[in-house]
Amino acid sequence: MDVLQDLFASLKRAQTRLAPENAAAKNKALSAAAAAIDRDRAAILAANARDVEKARSGGMKESLIDRLFLDNQRINGIIEGIETVIRQEDPIGKLRAGWTLPNGLFVEQISVPMGVAAIIYESRPNVTADCAALAYKAGCSILLRGSSSALESNKALVASIKSGLADGGGIADAVALADSGNRDEIDEILTARGWIDVVLPRGGKDLIRRVVQNARIPVIETGEGNCHIYVEPSADMDKAVEIIANAKLQKPGVCNAVETLLIHRDALAALMPPLAVRLAGKAELRCDAESKAAVGTAAECGIVLKDAAEEDWETEFLDYILAVKTVDSCGEAIAHINRYGTRHSEAILTNDLQSAEQFRMGVDAACVYVNASTRFTDGSVFGFGAELGISTQKFHTRGPMGLEALTTIKYLVSGSGQVRE
Amino acid sequence: MDVLQDLFASLKRAQTRLAPENAAAKNKALSAAAAAIDRDRAAILAANARDVEKARSGGMKESLIDRLFLDNQRINGIIEGIETVIRQEDPIGKLRAGWTLPNGLFVEQISVPMGVAAIIYESRPNVTADCAALAYKAGCSILLRGSSSALESNKALVASIKSGLADGGGIADAVALADSGNRDEIDEILTARGWIDVVLPRGGKDLIRRVVQNARIPVIETGEGNCHIYVEPSADMDKAVEIIANAKLQKPGVCNAVETLLIHRDALAALMPPLAVRLAGKAELRCDAESKAAVGTAAECGIVLKDAAEEDWETEFLDYILAVKTVDSCGEAIAHINRYGTRHSEAILTNDLQSAEQFRMGVDAACVYVNASTRFTDGSVFGFGAELGISTQKFHTRGPMGLEALTTIKYLVSGSGQVRE
Repeated sequence: MDVLQDLFASLKRAQTRLAPENAAAKNKALSAAAAAIDRDRAAILAANARDVEKARSGGMKESLIDRLFLDNQRINGIIEGIETVIRQEDPIGKLRAGWTLPNGLFVEQISVPMGVAAIIYESRPNVTADCAALAYKAGCSILLRGSSSALESNKALVASIKSGLADGGGIADAVALADSGNRDEIDEILTARGWIDVVLPRGGKDLIRRVVQNARIPVIETGEGNCHIYVEPSADMDKAVEIIANAKLQKPGVCNAVETLLIHRDALAALMPPLAVRLAGKAELRCDAESKAAVGTAAECGIVLKDAAEEDWETEFLDYILAVKTVDSCGEAIAHINRYGTRHSEAILTNDLQSAEQFRMGVDAACVYVNASTRFTDGSVFGFGAELGISTQKFHTRGPMGLEALTTIKYLVSGSGQVRE
Repeated sequence: MDVLQDLFASLKRAQTRLAPENAAAKNKALSAAAAAIDRDRAAILAANARDVEKARSGGMKESLIDRLFLDNQRINGIIEGIETVIRQEDPIGKLRAGWTLPNGLFVEQISVPMGVAAIIYESRPNVTADCAALAYKAGCSILLRGSSSALESNKALVASIKSGLADGGGIADAVALADSGNRDEIDEILTARGWIDVVLPRGGKDLIRRVVQNARIPVIETGEGNCHIYVEPSADMDKAVEIIANAKLQKPGVCNAVETLLIHRDALAALMPPLAVRLAGKAELRCDAESKAAVGTAAECGIVLKDAAEEDWETEFLDYILAVKTVDSCGEAIAHINRYGTRHSEAILTNDLQSAEQFRMGVDAACVYVNASTRFTDGSVFGFGAELGISTQKFHTRGPMGLEALTTIKYLVSGSGQVRE
């Protein structure tokens, strides 16, 4: 269990040196890291080819191999990701609040780096560069623990990033890869109290659950999204159809895609027939009896209509499947969402101001939308630059996470000899 | 392990009803709770007398019995604590940020209640009322799990608070006491994922460690304070002596009292003799060789001078004992603090601007002071009203915790039919 101890100590020392660096110095080092990746393309692609070959001969599915695979264009994307981070405002040294106490003490609350972060992730090599850049910009050291299937790619990328940081006058030791390939590494990271300040799992449900169950250090939980759209009779039905189609079809495998549609009984007749036509050949509907009946003769368009089961309400399909349920009121929609949702992204489509307010206040979720697609919950869309993930917890950070999620605060108190009475 | 399940569900339902309450409604209910405690004094004092009698016959130390003991004056203090919370600004529904995306979506980040909080604490009954009031004001339900030695007192207080909340038109079920007396209660709270959003341990080191080790829900760690004062030659030595005396003597048993004094070699001659005179008969010094020698003839004042051992640097004495160490530079002082400190409250006494800045930036702690006593780290002093505790962690909240520590954020996104390209 002591595979990583030296790395922990080195990351902590590096973070102490990185913390006071100003934005210009951090950006210069990150630019040099991007340049080093550009320079080292051949080595990175060769390492990636070894990973891909091993994965293929080991029988990995092509869809997963595609996530692992790098080519020149994807390396351009990785470089562009680092440049996005460089363009972000420095999150450190911001004065968040300040006031003077009755005894003359001046209290300032400023933002400082969280410290040492760790990320445990699956096969995509771009996560390696994105997270290294985000952490560096936030003045944090980072320990990267990728999947063993991407080990060669990650070794090449991290070597390149570290050499670039050094070229740019930066602190190369602030970035480290856990590369022993030992499974115990994860447990060692999750119990590294005093060494690692926060761990982010990025990947499937099983990874996230394992991390949450075993961590003795703070975790930011990400990912699961059982998202809903609720439609009222006052909604613009043409727009409603397009919003639902967008939230279901544009990228169904992501966490902010819609999974269940809730329809007010009085909106069924206006919505279901055009929706069935719009989704025919593209998605399957799993309906309760009333919403199924409301499709009526529009069913001739060839839409696949199945009967919804209880388990459909709690399923994140991540597929071309939409569950549909009839409700009697906005309150019933809110209750359904708060029971079955994962507190990610929820939308109401309505022209009724009172319902919109009731929904905004009543739904417990990171992002609550009025008259828009749930697909906008995303760090880049929100303007945060490259993304650490979307937090589905309420503690420390919630929703799309930018650089601020890797900061904490410090109080600076200035006096002239004050003592406590 | 299902002792508390009904209580969890009831607290969660109550929180859903409490969340949208406005400040006037919450304050009215809290005023009625304060009035109910005033009305029920006799019953509360009688219950407390039973606890005290049981504790005394069980052989509890008088200092601990004093923490448990209530009289009319202490009940006045409890009522005043609730009134302080009423006077605090409502932390809910604050617009923290807002911006418009290029596609016209309007994004608002607002503060919302964290949800259901739990507090696990030791014998002081005033914590029961303080935490119930703070949670209620923050729109959170709270589960109170006090020590079994205070069970009768807590039952009477909670009954009174709940009846008051109901009298004031509030939501009595938002406050609950875990009163089975069963030790498994704590484990059940610490693993209540999906029911409890945050748990705060308030008490001694052992309690806090047990909670941190066993919790599968977010914890806010509080308490330990191995605090330092570092003195430079440019400091005003008269003020330095008074600041050190204040930080050591005014209330040595608290977490923001100073434990180790670091003195620049060039300040030894000016500081040690008057400091020894000031602390003689009041505190014991545990010095390294140089600082001991620097006391010189002033030792005739009768100050107790012992030799410091390595373990003194890492000890939170909570007593009339001060460790003293000589350093060569501000950098050495910072390194010592970052190695041995608990990231609570740290002070530099200097007139050198460069050192002050180096110390403020270099020391990793919740509160960093220039030319003032460490004793000011306190929610009330900082202006936050009654205190949930002082967070010594960096995640979610740091330093003195007011109502804001029980809040999280929600993004409200308003559109007019936007879909993602």
